[in-house]
Amino acid sequence: MKIKYGIIGCSGRMGKEIAAVMNEAGHQLVFSAASNYENMTERPGLLIDFSFAAASEKTIGYAKKFGCPLVTGVTGLNAEQIAGLKEYGLSCAVVQSYNYSVGIQMLIKCSEMLVKQLPDWDVEISETHHRFKKDKPSGTALMLKDALKKNVNISSLRLGNVAGDHTVYFGGLGEVISLTHSATSRRTFAEGVLKSAEFAVSAEPGFYSFSQVLFGE
Amino acid sequence: MKIKYGIIGCSGRMGKEIAAVMNEAGHQLVFSAASNYENMTERPGLLIDFSFAAASEKTIGYAKKFGCPLVTGVTGLNAEQIAGLKEYGLSCAVVQSYNYSVGIQMLIKCSEMLVKQLPDWDVEISETHHRFKKDKPSGTALMLKDALKKNVNISSLRLGNVAGDHTVYFGGLGEVISLTHSATSRRTFAEGVLKSAEFAVSAEPGFYSFSQVLFGE
Amino acid sequence: MKIKYGIIGCSGRMGKEIAAVMNEAGHQLVFSAASNYENMTERPGLLIDFSFAAASEKTIGYAKKFGCPLVTGVTGLNAEQIAGLKEYGLSCAVVQSYNYSVGIQMLIKCSEMLVKQLPDWDVEISETHHRFKKDKPSGTALMLKDALKKNVNISSLRLGNVAGDHTVYFGGLGEVISLTHSATSRRTFAEGVLKSAEFAVSAEPGFYSFSQVLFGE
Amino acid sequence: MKIKYGIIGCSGRMGKEIAAVMNEAGHQLVFSAASNYENMTERPGLLIDFSFAAASEKTIGYAKKFGCPLVTGVTGLNAEQIAGLKEYGLSCAVVQSYNYSVGIQMLIKCSEMLVKQLPDWDVEISETHHRFKKDKPSGTALMLKDALKKNVNISSLRLGNVAGDHTVYFGGLGEVISLTHSATSRRTFAEGVLKSAEFAVSAEPGFYSFSQVLFGE
Repeated sequence: MKIKYGIIGCSGRMGKEIAAVMNEAGHQLVFSAASNYENMTERPGLLIDFSFAAASEKTIGYAKKFGCPLVTGVTGLNAEQIAGLKEYGLSCAVVQSYNYSVGIQMLIKCSEMLVKQLPDWDVEISETHHRFKKDKPSGTALMLKDALKKNVNISSLRLGNVAGDHTVYFGGLGEVISLTHSATSRRTFAEGVLKSAEFAVSAEPGFYSFSQVLFGE
Repeated sequence: MKIKYGIIGCSGRMGKEIAAVMNEAGHQLVFSAASNYENMTERPGLLIDFSFAAASEKTIGYAKKFGCPLVTGVTGLNAEQIAGLKEYGLSCAVVQSYNYSVGIQMLIKCSEMLVKQLPDWDVEISETHHRFKKDKPSGTALMLKDALKKNVNISSLRLGNVAGDHTVYFGGLGEVISLTHSATSRRTFAEGVLKSAEFAVSAEPGFYSFSQVLFGE
Repeated sequence: MKIKYGIIGCSGRMGKEIAAVMNEAGHQLVFSAASNYENMTERPGLLIDFSFAAASEKTIGYAKKFGCPLVTGVTGLNAEQIAGLKEYGLSCAVVQSYNYSVGIQMLIKCSEMLVKQLPDWDVEISETHHRFKKDKPSGTALMLKDALKKNVNISSLRLGNVAGDHTVYFGGLGEVISLTHSATSRRTFAEGVLKSAEFAVSAEPGFYSFSQVLFGE
Repeated sequence: MKIKYGIIGCSGRMGKEIAAVMNEAGHQLVFSAASNYENMTERPGLLIDFSFAAASEKTIGYAKKFGCPLVTGVTGLNAEQIAGLKEYGLSCAVVQSYNYSVGIQMLIKCSEMLVKQLPDWDVEISETHHRFKKDKPSGTALMLKDALKKNVNISSLRLGNVAGDHTVYFGGLGEVISLTHSATSRRTFAEGVLKSAEFAVSAEPGFYSFSQVLFGE
């Protein structure tokens, strides 16, 4: 099914990558918005938000206006902003994640299994990103920590233009397991957004995680 | 529960390490045997065998005499010796494995999950061991390959006195996941034996793998 | 100094990347050639060749016609083609390398130092590239092996769309050193070409390696 | 030459390992001291200190009493304690290092080369040690930072019983170089102490680094 969609945060690096991947898949960009910009050629049937947490209210305003599903990858949302998205999820499907790569979801699944099976092992997280990244630690590292349900130390390294590496370490007396995810291109995230967009347009109203999009749970 | 246990192969490196770990956990060594040695202070309620395949019959003889569960880490067992252990498993719990590290079992579980969820990703295995290791690839790398049920390339590196590192890589277009296990001491295997011992003393008769001890399957 | 330059192999991925980086640095593309294409707006003062070994003679023909320095990153050159470049180097500066990343040159320098200081340590090389790469091992891994002047085992992994990772391992009894280079974008090679171009236009006639461009030796 | 030596910090893990390696090499332990313990069978011709910075004054007291060379691997020394060692170096050879592995010295050499050749690259250090290690970051990580002469961020991970891993990362736009040293046994440090001990007993008075012991500079 061809989706007529809009992107909020259309001028950012992720916004552009998503538009490219959505268009390749045959979907059509009909609405674009950025901080001081707005352009609509047709009414969108889906919104994708990769702008900023501060613009969260404005995004929900757009979504209400169009009455359409929403896929958001905005990072650093506070409790109130999450609540706003959940409320909107009562009337339309909302997919929310800080990371749309399949591999990171698998890293989370493995980490959850290990932390459950190895409760007395030490756990550490490290993440490496490009020197331009402003937040520290990364939203994905925080997602991993949440999944572990443990007070885990996060080490953050900033190097060159690394797209994003995350490692979860488990250390027992006599052995160490490390699970590493490396993004080798930004495209992988855009493909996760595509999957979520195609899920959202036919989903019941609800507030969905990317894990639910992929695995139904 | 405090276990009064015996060790066959008590003078080997693993035998000593196991005794240390079992005693730390509050269990009591009451029977020791080696090729030309035997000492019993009390009748054991469990036997641990880390001797040699050739002594397999003798071990089963001891087990029958004491009528107690058996945990064996003896390597290179032939079909007949395995059959003997399985037969004994009809009357008492027997745990048998060539590798008692919890971490390697976890690496296998994670790898099985990933290969199932990411069927079109590339998979590679690499292993690094000390320069004195004669077999190439390692038995554990072959175990990993078996678990993946795929024709996976194995790279083998031989370096200094590395105890043993194994990595399984999964590569998609845009991301790579790598799962690494590093053995940092022999103690880890002794702890797997401890877990198996505590499992065996309260298990129904049966022939169990180390994976069943850990995960029930 | 602003260089008016030409690119042979202008339509390839490297050709385009190089043009972008050269133009950002203020240089001006005045001549472009590909297999069935040629366009000249002005006579170039430097040629960059990222086409194919088979076109080597044609490239030297262009260079002779313009009487200008040449920077070549063409791979798989045979002895005769190298000889042709060296001969042209008698009248104009020629820079030739199979790898224009500064980091790989540094990896070579470090590896040469370690192999000299740690003669009795084990050495291993591993390289990881995208699944589409046809040669195995990579040309860069072979360059590293040559630099080590030792018969070193090379492990090759093929995973997703990895741009290119190379590791040299040194293993002693009690410690392991590993030196890893990861390419995170093709741009890094284009920047090496830029450095070589700026070197070539003011260099004496000669046949130079990329190491000579960077370190003078 | 057979050395009659003493160890201060004889009951620690390093103290025991050093005694084993020194004795294997034919040297003789004649003096042992720990916080509340002292035992002398003969006057030592060399002292090895692997106790604590707080005991530094006491150690120099012993050295003065015996008038013998000193090899110290005590970590966390303050400026005053270093000054005390230097002063003692005016009369007897003193070797001082926070790390006695050859590999770490090589890591430093490589890092110094890279930081000089790649001045605009980002640099990060990470270190991983066993959960029982009290200081954070490790003395070795601080040594690496000093060698880099840059204000570098250090990430510290504490996992199981890892003997000690150190990585120095260099990140440019388009490539990352990482240099990793992993200790696979504590013995490697004891062997560096042995080398230093044999150096110290025949050296002129002076304050020496382990790099000077190994490379004369």
